[in-house]
Amino acid sequence: MNFSIVKHIIGYVLIFEAALMVLPCIVAVIYQEGEGWSFVIMALLCLLFGFLLKGKKPENRVFYVKEGFVTVALSWIIMSVMGCLPFLITGSVTNPIDALFETVSGFTTTGSSILSDVEALSKSVLFWRSFTHWIGGMGVLVFLLSLLHMTGGGSHINLMRAESPGPSVSKLVPTVQSTAKILYIIYMAMTVLEILFLLIGRMPVFDALTITFGTAGTGGFGIKNDSMAGYSPYLQVVVTIFMILFGVNFSAYFLLLRRKFKQAFSMEEVRCYFLIILASIIVISLSVTDLYGSVGEAVLQAAFQVGSIITTTGYASTDFNLWPEVPKTILVLLMFVGACAGSTGGGIKVSRLVILVKTIKKELHMLLHPRSLKKLKMDGHALEHETVRATNVFLIAYVLIFAFSVLLVGFDGNDLITNFTAVASALNNIGPGLELVGPLGNFGLFSNGAKLVLIFDMLAGRLEIFPLLLLFVRDTWKKF
Amino acid sequence: MNFSIVKHIIGYVLIFEAALMVLPCIVAVIYQEGEGWSFVIMALLCLLFGFLLKGKKPENRVFYVKEGFVTVALSWIIMSVMGCLPFLITGSVTNPIDALFETVSGFTTTGSSILSDVEALSKSVLFWRSFTHWIGGMGVLVFLLSLLHMTGGGSHINLMRAESPGPSVSKLVPTVQSTAKILYIIYMAMTVLEILFLLIGRMPVFDALTITFGTAGTGGFGIKNDSMAGYSPYLQVVVTIFMILFGVNFSAYFLLLRRKFKQAFSMEEVRCYFLIILASIIVISLSVTDLYGSVGEAVLQAAFQVGSIITTTGYASTDFNLWPEVPKTILVLLMFVGACAGSTGGGIKVSRLVILVKTIKKELHMLLHPRSLKKLKMDGHALEHETVRATNVFLIAYVLIFAFSVLLVGFDGNDLITNFTAVASALNNIGPGLELVGPLGNFGLFSNGAKLVLIFDMLAGRLEIFPLLLLFVRDTWKKF
Repeated sequence: MNFSIVKHIIGYVLIFEAALMVLPCIVAVIYQEGEGWSFVIMALLCLLFGFLLKGKKPENRVFYVKEGFVTVALSWIIMSVMGCLPFLITGSVTNPIDALFETVSGFTTTGSSILSDVEALSKSVLFWRSFTHWIGGMGVLVFLLSLLHMTGGGSHINLMRAESPGPSVSKLVPTVQSTAKILYIIYMAMTVLEILFLLIGRMPVFDALTITFGTAGTGGFGIKNDSMAGYSPYLQVVVTIFMILFGVNFSAYFLLLRRKFKQAFSMEEVRCYFLIILASIIVISLSVTDLYGSVGEAVLQAAFQVGSIITTTGYASTDFNLWPEVPKTILVLLMFVGACAGSTGGGIKVSRLVILVKTIKKELHMLLHPRSLKKLKMDGHALEHETVRATNVFLIAYVLIFAFSVLLVGFDGNDLITNFTAVASALNNIGPGLELVGPLGNFGLFSNGAKLVLIFDMLAGRLEIFPLLLLFVRDTWKKF
Repeated sequence: MNFSIVKHIIGYVLIFEAALMVLPCIVAVIYQEGEGWSFVIMALLCLLFGFLLKGKKPENRVFYVKEGFVTVALSWIIMSVMGCLPFLITGSVTNPIDALFETVSGFTTTGSSILSDVEALSKSVLFWRSFTHWIGGMGVLVFLLSLLHMTGGGSHINLMRAESPGPSVSKLVPTVQSTAKILYIIYMAMTVLEILFLLIGRMPVFDALTITFGTAGTGGFGIKNDSMAGYSPYLQVVVTIFMILFGVNFSAYFLLLRRKFKQAFSMEEVRCYFLIILASIIVISLSVTDLYGSVGEAVLQAAFQVGSIITTTGYASTDFNLWPEVPKTILVLLMFVGACAGSTGGGIKVSRLVILVKTIKKELHMLLHPRSLKKLKMDGHALEHETVRATNVFLIAYVLIFAFSVLLVGFDGNDLITNFTAVASALNNIGPGLELVGPLGNFGLFSNGAKLVLIFDMLAGRLEIFPLLLLFVRDTWKKF
């Protein structure tokens, strides 16, 4: 492992985090909150550590996949540790594990909270909490890549591969840096658009900003105790639409910008994504119409919850824990489906499911025609063997970590649905689960041990497992 | 598809089923029950259809994997349809779907029942019900293979592959026929041994026979409404030990018979199987000691339930639905683990889990050493690529069918844990689940639609998915 370069890049990440903390400072100045000082202190600390770690550009530029994985995993952990300190310094949260949980939940765009009363937080802390979603959504290292030439060699693509969700990394344009830039430009443009639409609906500016950060990153931290339930139907519809849009593979937007409409609308993953959303909304609307009195209201609530769960955002506009079993089961299944690859959403990802279903179809075809050389195809192109293999291995690791986490969290003695959906929620970066961790519950009820398991799951979910697992292998820590 | 040979073999299966039905006839004679006639009628019908289907030995001997899969899938379905008619004719069950459910549950060694009062059944029907477990456990076609030269060509190995559980078929000796013979000899010897041990504990002969059939096939149909709870601790211990023994890979017994003790005791799968059992018993005993008053009683109950669930037998000696969350969670996870490959048990199988864990380890190794050519090994031998691939594909199909089944069963409106564990129970061929389908509940509460889904799952679980899926592919039904 080339630790000198890992250190160097983590240094950049910390300097970047310092820059990010300037924003809550500004919020504190506007609202005249003393909490601003904690962000000033932390920004300076990040800056100090950042420059110490960055040092000079290392001579050894060797940068393979493993360096990419380790850099990303360590960056996210260190970023979370530094990012959680403002919660502790301001006294918003007193238990360090809780503060770490809340911050990891933010950066990983999970949106699960240990707080029972978020309205008690100061504006600057609330702002920081929601802003972590925005950063985590598209990725810290992707952001850095779009701005800087940190190192040479294979570092760019390997960092991008480690941080971007989905079974394979698709470069939109030949260079990684330009790809990262395009992604962030689309991301920012859509963010601005949502803020505008929310402001048109007379949402207060602070709310519009924070709610948009949560939507864009598909995070889901609310700034009200009832999440989104208190906002007008118009605002709920805007958020519904944007949640679903942020869950679309960003390659589709790139194709649209290039006016390749046909290609954009024929992307298998995106079509499948919208099909699942549509089907789920229809079935759920039918079964909850009685609860809401009118078909319109039922469709609105169904669409909001489906959009929120499949994109793994996790806002709630109603307590779906009280819904009948079929809608609840559909939501639980959608938790696992997740959004598109190359979006800001979590979960297994629609493209992986498409690949998995195609694998089964191919297997059946092979049984009937053993000598056929059929290749798996996606969007008209043959899928690389490596992509299919990586998808299979991902599923295995996912299932094993899931099962093990449910067992460990079970030692707290809560009911099975709480444990099962809490782990599903963490590993898929969603936010709420069912029963005790339903939309109106929170994760404060878990013991510190269970919270650590869920913190691991959130990071594993966001970084797609292997970068994090690699940290637990002894060989990783050998110098060469 | 070579349908002439498929038909031919199914003919044999029906003739064989006719022979099996002689046993409940004998029981009816002994207990002087009129129900015996229904078995006489069905035996004659099976014989008739059997000879009609068998016809002459077909000239076309082409027999590939697909023929093996289709033959086995159709055999099991037809066998179940014929086997369920006695329930209807005797009036023991009135709903045809219920009768099919009960019979499929028997043959697939699931042991889930739609009956709320099994003690009301006549002895001959009870005997038939339990006897289906014994046949299904080691397999009908494996039995036929051990006796007959049905066809030539690749039929033997392809039939064995389709019916035997586990990621790969290990022939114990060079010929398939001898392998099948050895397997059935071990199976019968162990069956006789258990009957003897039960008789020593003063269990009535009828009970000893039926309970042993349920243990040997890892089925779990009880003949009492409280399953095994009413029997003495000695009898419960005997059943616990034999359940666990029937869940061991039979290759281990073969090695023991050949006096290859070292090889037998170093089988990775078997060691892992016992390790999981031991660990589960210890953890569960610790958490249920309060419930049972003494450590001894807690260990007894823990061991019985662990043995029953991991081997997918499904007998119950206590209502584990009332246990605390950790033991319940462990039992749910054990449902998925299942027994060893090459045993009569169901589930994912310990060997598959070992392969899956090794795949993850290899992936991490590959990330660190991209140029290494490490191969997966099991018991000191390199695993064939095909075995690893088949294991991955199995997991994919398993997870997808599982998710889809939970959704479909959900339309009945029962709670999520009932649905989740009912599907887990069916797909892993266990028997009881939790909540409404717990040890004291039964599957009669489901609608006909949900029962059909569970029937599909039971068959898919026993035949390891692909033989059954193949029936739903249009190409399968093309003549050539």
